[in-house]
Amino acid sequence: MRVTRSFSKTRKEKPSGATTISHELLVRGGFIDQELAGVFTMLPYGWNVLTKIEQIVREAMNKAGGQELLMTNLQAKDHWETTGRWKSIDVLFKVPSQHGREYALSPTAEDVITPIAKERIKSYRDLPLAAYQIQTKFRDEARAKSGIIRGREFRMKDLYSFHADQADLERYYNSMIPVYLQVYKRCGIDAKVVEASGGDFTKQNSIEFMAISDAGEDTIVYCAECTFAQNKEIAKLGEQHPCPDCATQLKTAKAMEIGNIFKLGTKFSEAFGATFVDAQGKQQPIIMASYGIGTTRLVGAIIEVHHDERGMIWPESVAPFGVHLVGINLDNDAVKKACEQLYGSLEQAGVEVLFDDRESASAGEKLSDADLIGIPHRVVISKKTLAGDTVEYKKRSESEPTMLSQAELLKKIIGRGDYAGPRSQRDI
Amino acid sequence: MRVTRSFSKTRKEKPSGATTISHELLVRGGFIDQELAGVFTMLPYGWNVLTKIEQIVREAMNKAGGQELLMTNLQAKDHWETTGRWKSIDVLFKVPSQHGREYALSPTAEDVITPIAKERIKSYRDLPLAAYQIQTKFRDEARAKSGIIRGREFRMKDLYSFHADQADLERYYNSMIPVYLQVYKRCGIDAKVVEASGGDFTKQNSIEFMAISDAGEDTIVYCAECTFAQNKEIAKLGEQHPCPDCATQLKTAKAMEIGNIFKLGTKFSEAFGATFVDAQGKQQPIIMASYGIGTTRLVGAIIEVHHDERGMIWPESVAPFGVHLVGINLDNDAVKKACEQLYGSLEQAGVEVLFDDRESASAGEKLSDADLIGIPHRVVISKKTLAGDTVEYKKRSESEPTMLSQAELLKKIIGRGDYAGPRSQRDI
Repeated sequence: MRVTRSFSKTRKEKPSGATTISHELLVRGGFIDQELAGVFTMLPYGWNVLTKIEQIVREAMNKAGGQELLMTNLQAKDHWETTGRWKSIDVLFKVPSQHGREYALSPTAEDVITPIAKERIKSYRDLPLAAYQIQTKFRDEARAKSGIIRGREFRMKDLYSFHADQADLERYYNSMIPVYLQVYKRCGIDAKVVEASGGDFTKQNSIEFMAISDAGEDTIVYCAECTFAQNKEIAKLGEQHPCPDCATQLKTAKAMEIGNIFKLGTKFSEAFGATFVDAQGKQQPIIMASYGIGTTRLVGAIIEVHHDERGMIWPESVAPFGVHLVGINLDNDAVKKACEQLYGSLEQAGVEVLFDDRESASAGEKLSDADLIGIPHRVVISKKTLAGDTVEYKKRSESEPTMLSQAELLKKIIGRGDYAGPRSQRDI
Repeated sequence: MRVTRSFSKTRKEKPSGATTISHELLVRGGFIDQELAGVFTMLPYGWNVLTKIEQIVREAMNKAGGQELLMTNLQAKDHWETTGRWKSIDVLFKVPSQHGREYALSPTAEDVITPIAKERIKSYRDLPLAAYQIQTKFRDEARAKSGIIRGREFRMKDLYSFHADQADLERYYNSMIPVYLQVYKRCGIDAKVVEASGGDFTKQNSIEFMAISDAGEDTIVYCAECTFAQNKEIAKLGEQHPCPDCATQLKTAKAMEIGNIFKLGTKFSEAFGATFVDAQGKQQPIIMASYGIGTTRLVGAIIEVHHDERGMIWPESVAPFGVHLVGINLDNDAVKKACEQLYGSLEQAGVEVLFDDRESASAGEKLSDADLIGIPHRVVISKKTLAGDTVEYKKRSESEPTMLSQAELLKKIIGRGDYAGPRSQRDI
């Protein structure tokens, strides 16, 4: 992608009212555009990142036996009344039709998946089953001021699992914990498994996956030496206490929820009469669990964890592009030709390149845009680098550039020496 | 995918109120589930098809220089008031918030993309530009009874192009016609390019892409020998007339709109004050066009064109699976083993296989399900086929099966002899 042709454009001004660094950097970097408070267009750079995150999530869910489908955003009022949630979910958008009906606008999908599962699951032989979607969701939040971390419209992966007995639910539920941790790891986040309240769904505790971050709205009590971690809402111990598992002194930190899993039990299946015939020929309610990951929120969370004072620092796995090619002195024919050649070679090899081909912008503007956008590998070609028959190469995460020959650079990037990012995913 | 594990399940009953064959077959085949009139969940089989169609559309739009992004479903009322469409678009869903606001729920996105383009396009040097999304849309239709062909919630690709002058718009607009035709061709549809009225958008004529089908809501006047085709709404000639281009006698037919392209001109850019500085230093309104393809509607259109009395007949490019493997006499160990081996070999080679592994269903039920679901290649393994050391192979589009050795079959399918479908796209 050439910067002169890009629909994403950087800007200098901070967005008004931004309270998180991710909100500020995503707007300044041309990744998102605010349509309404808490409602954002994903511009091409942001959409690139989101697509990669969602593909990582999709691969993990497929591996965990989830079947992908796409439920509806408009949902039947009578389904929501069946579960009592038409009245109890305070963030539910209610959409009137001019033709006399009223719909729920999906904040989540238990009220849709349960009647579908009821039609499909008749016998214990049909169980277990798991289905998921990656879909836009809506919540009529009272406040929305953290950018894409807490939006009124956002994207979320929600998986629902169906089981014949509690033991099978526990088995699958527990097997999802390493699956989730692997997703976060692939996205560059070291997540904590935190015990939390079950919220609207269950009286049992649930599991929240948390990234330690000052932008977080929660506080966790955790042990730095073992896996013990609890949301402060339910924690009985604090900083002054030893870890109940390993006796190390506990810590507290602000943390951001980046996923959660709930044992729903029979709450929804009983409401809808979703039963199956067990091995003894007896009707039983299906036992359910749900598993969420907010994918747009994850875009924000990754930045909260990976940035510096100059901008974003994308992990290669989810970076909007693999290489940022900066041409300086583009009025010089030799520089222009060298840039075009390298751009062509990298794209040819399937590496996604953002090529700053602006003749109008200064070297300083281009380099500070590269820092802001945070693509992992930066390559500069200028009169100076050409004079030495080299290019300047720098990782976004390092401070010192090195001078390489074009051949050395191509080997580094295309030969996957230092380049671990995905190849172009657009035309599969 | 094993049928016993699948979240999609076939059913015998026709859905009540179905007026189109695609609606009936998609519900009976387990491709879609009706949440509300005109609002459907895409179950795994349907989602497989939709994903493939959307990928074909995506590749075409990328090739045409479109940059993918994702705009919002909730849209600002003031944007819709700026264009006067808050009042004039009768199918607009208006979503009230409990916090005192009201939002438009995206039926289309001109009112979002134009203010974004205004921020990004300053000079003629920034033009032309094209951006698109593939996204869920909403229309508060008075009637919705054709299944996914005319839904209240549906998915659509919408591309918007931006130009400095009319000549450049004409160039790009005309270049999109073969791009669209190629998309339909890849989806197995021979589309007609039909002149039609500009509707809400423009007083000029627009272009509709149409599939001739009895399920269509339009009538076209067309020439079977050349490319002349007009929507009857604007046609001045009828069946009794000779074609104005080649003098062949014209025909009429019912047809279904499967895409449209509009010259928006400066309608939206003038409303939002979206201008650029031209080469002479003068402020000019940006000239726009829009290009739509309803991707869920296309799922239905493909079936309207490709079915017989027994079920759907999917083109390989968009089939939910490449091969339908039917195991008969699965209580026989040798049959079971042969099925499992072939299933493994095909999946290993990246061919998507639906394996009917039900022991409870009869041979008749399985074969009629295979006809209903319409996967291009059907392979049957039974005691009888094993006795001859063969498998039974049949294309869905042909009536007579042939007996092949396993080696011949694998060569046919994996060696791409007769198999032109995509390899698994899930884990790219």
